Amino acid sequence: MSKPSIPQGTRDFSPELMAKRKFILNTIENVYQSFGFMQLETPAMENLSTLTGKYGNEGDQLLFKILNSGDYLKDLALETLDSKSLIPKIAEKGLRYDLTVPLARFVAMHRHEISFPFKRYQIQPVWRADRPQKGRYREFWQCDADVLGTDSLLCEADFIKIYQTVFSKLGLHDYEIRINHRKLLEAVCEKADAKQHFRTITIIIDKADKIGIDGVAKELGSIGLDAAQVQTVLSLLNKKELSKQTIEAFSKDLSGTESIGKAIEDLNKLIDLCGNNLKQIVLDGSLARGLDYYTACIFEVVPTSVKMGSISGGGRYDNLTEVFGLKEKVSGIGISFGIDRLYDVMEELQLFVGQTSSFADVLFCPMDEEAISYCLPLADICREKGFKTEIYPSPSKLKKQLDYANSKNIKWAIIVGESEIEKREVSIKNLVDGNQQTSDIVDFVDLIH
Amino acid sequence: MSKPSIPQGTRDFSPELMAKRKFILNTIENVYQSFGFMQLETPAMENLSTLTGKYGNEGDQLLFKILNSGDYLKDLALETLDSKSLIPKIAEKGLRYDLTVPLARFVAMHRHEISFPFKRYQIQPVWRADRPQKGRYREFWQCDADVLGTDSLLCEADFIKIYQTVFSKLGLHDYEIRINHRKLLEAVCEKADAKQHFRTITIIIDKADKIGIDGVAKELGSIGLDAAQVQTVLSLLNKKELSKQTIEAFSKDLSGTESIGKAIEDLNKLIDLCGNNLKQIVLDGSLARGLDYYTACIFEVVPTSVKMGSISGGGRYDNLTEVFGLKEKVSGIGISFGIDRLYDVMEELQLFVGQTSSFADVLFCPMDEEAISYCLPLADICREKGFKTEIYPSPSKLKKQLDYANSKNIKWAIIVGESEIEKREVSIKNLVDGNQQTSDIVDFVDLIH
Repeated sequence: MSKPSIPQGTRDFSPELMAKRKFILNTIENVYQSFGFMQLETPAMENLSTLTGKYGNEGDQLLFKILNSGDYLKDLALETLDSKSLIPKIAEKGLRYDLTVPLARFVAMHRHEISFPFKRYQIQPVWRADRPQKGRYREFWQCDADVLGTDSLLCEADFIKIYQTVFSKLGLHDYEIRINHRKLLEAVCEKADAKQHFRTITIIIDKADKIGIDGVAKELGSIGLDAAQVQTVLSLLNKKELSKQTIEAFSKDLSGTESIGKAIEDLNKLIDLCGNNLKQIVLDGSLARGLDYYTACIFEVVPTSVKMGSISGGGRYDNLTEVFGLKEKVSGIGISFGIDRLYDVMEELQLFVGQTSSFADVLFCPMDEEAISYCLPLADICREKGFKTEIYPSPSKLKKQLDYANSKNIKWAIIVGESEIEKREVSIKNLVDGNQQTSDIVDFVDLIH
Repeated sequence: MSKPSIPQGTRDFSPELMAKRKFILNTIENVYQSFGFMQLETPAMENLSTLTGKYGNEGDQLLFKILNSGDYLKDLALETLDSKSLIPKIAEKGLRYDLTVPLARFVAMHRHEISFPFKRYQIQPVWRADRPQKGRYREFWQCDADVLGTDSLLCEADFIKIYQTVFSKLGLHDYEIRINHRKLLEAVCEKADAKQHFRTITIIIDKADKIGIDGVAKELGSIGLDAAQVQTVLSLLNKKELSKQTIEAFSKDLSGTESIGKAIEDLNKLIDLCGNNLKQIVLDGSLARGLDYYTACIFEVVPTSVKMGSISGGGRYDNLTEVFGLKEKVSGIGISFGIDRLYDVMEELQLFVGQTSSFADVLFCPMDEEAISYCLPLADICREKGFKTEIYPSPSKLKKQLDYANSKNIKWAIIVGESEIEKREVSIKNLVDGNQQTSDIVDFVDLIH
């Protein structure tokens, strides 16, 4: 029999890992709920017709496809097929690739039952057949919140507050919320007289963090921009504080372009709504976010004291359900936390404090068989008081039982042997400071804390 | 463009459904944790070599298989293949079919890092390519707890207490915990001189609920048992209270058989451990549970005031990791709640009370654009006090905003217009009793409850 293993790019989450992950997930979920977001869950499997064509050619390649059940080959002329032509005949379903397309599909199917603005959050795994590497998995968790059916800048302001609240609760203080506006990018391309290269230019400047300003300039040259055009585009690359002055400067530089008006209006409104709440926010003209469907404000959050990519991103889109043929415009905005990177950042900065502190509070240690029955009602009392409580299942040597307690970071061992049973008592040992005392079985629970 | 849909047998969980499901899941999870169980999560995809051969032939048919990535057909002689011989060449991974095999696989891989007894719980979806029908889904949730590495009857007693605690917290009072012992079944077969038919007989008597005693007798006859043998087996079919007397009677009837000793010993010990805590427990000799790997006590929970199959089941097994070639014996015991059926039972008995009561507590209703900025810091104050709070994102008509509040069952509307801003006040409307009052913006939050 071969050694058991799990598929490349997937992971088991042991209890220790789960405790830390849940701390992150619960923190985000509680903050989402505190802003009135409601939970949605969608199936792991979607019809391939729902998924394909939504993530570009590359994305289509990365979809995990599920074989149809039954003897689906019996009517196929196999010899005429290659893998490209065979797949649509043998696989009609695929695994969810993100949480945005399922949201759009859900809203398209249920738009008449939904009260808009629809504020939903969704925390589920997604799957991509990417080449696995450090920090990149084939199964990973997304943690999305979206508001559909309103174009109010209040949503942008709320998401900034959500970021600040989540990171404050996680104890992560060194980060930057990068903001940009798609129309600002458009205005710069317009100003550089390179509107036709808009998509390519956004892809190039998005790489500024990796290839540097010189790299960006070189790549811009290679698509045919002259020195003046390149200079205009490069003006985006300085990060600036998000302020009325910055916006005013852009407004001047890019006056006369078609797109700048909307960008200026949105960003000024956002500044007004945020009030004094602009700490950790920068206006990053190089931020483009790959996805075509963004149309206005876009976000990215990057930790600043550890080398790691973005831990969250998002933005506003004009018409999410358009891809499903809906005519009513459903504009909205959403963000997504990358839980796995966030976990890695917190681990590296040692921000997990006490999240794995204890899997139980109390361990009853029976010294003989009879003691197990004696402990059972006492354990119930502890649980009723809210203590996570267990009884060691056999009268093993005390050392073995206390080792088990240590492995689960249990603070209180309640030892019961012949003499305790005789006197209707228990011995309570604090495993942190080593103190031990005896108590009768009526009041013992008051000694636990 | 075709109308969007989801695969057969899968479901979206809208916020209303999620709120109720989470009530069930959180209740079970909290009870598991209160007994010292620790959470494990495993990947949705497992290698097919891990999954196949573990669930019988029928189970293998029901595995969802995932297509390999890349051009995997280019080296295959397609014309020589049918679907049975093609699958192993194009699919190496499958979706999780239950949570028990992944647990065994995890323990086999990590046995040297695990402190035994290992108490783990796991709440994740599983997938089966069953024909979808009412109450049977292709994606459904399991909610398992297992203790590995001990054969103490304390575990059985703990699981009984877990059942009682969970159902009490859910408000479900009409149910039966059915218990049986595999060795009791074996002893009866031995007594009937039909040991060689053990598996077939357990399958037949397991159907007693559906086909009745006459049906069972007929099927037993059809496999060659004579009238006396049939009578011996039928003696199992009376449900009895779990008591020393019942056990004593079995002990007498089945004396001389090889297996009865262990069954009597275990059941007597369990009765001792449970003490007075035997309400809602019956000894059901017809309970067999299909799975071959059970070896001692087996459980099933059935609601008694609504027609529905079992909502939980489980039992003790001797050597869970044997299938992965491990020589050290890892015996254990586990139970699993069927969340979907439990949900249906609770819905039918109208046991969901207040679980969907509110997706938010407070809605700020701005009457003009300026009011939105005014509300923002006030909303933060409400959130800091623990109230789920949102601001309606545009100054729509009050009626529209209050309709939205009603759709989310929001209790408090805080209305802000020109006059409130001028006086640094807010108007607070209790949407349950209709009362409205004004307050300054320092003390307003004290009026909310």
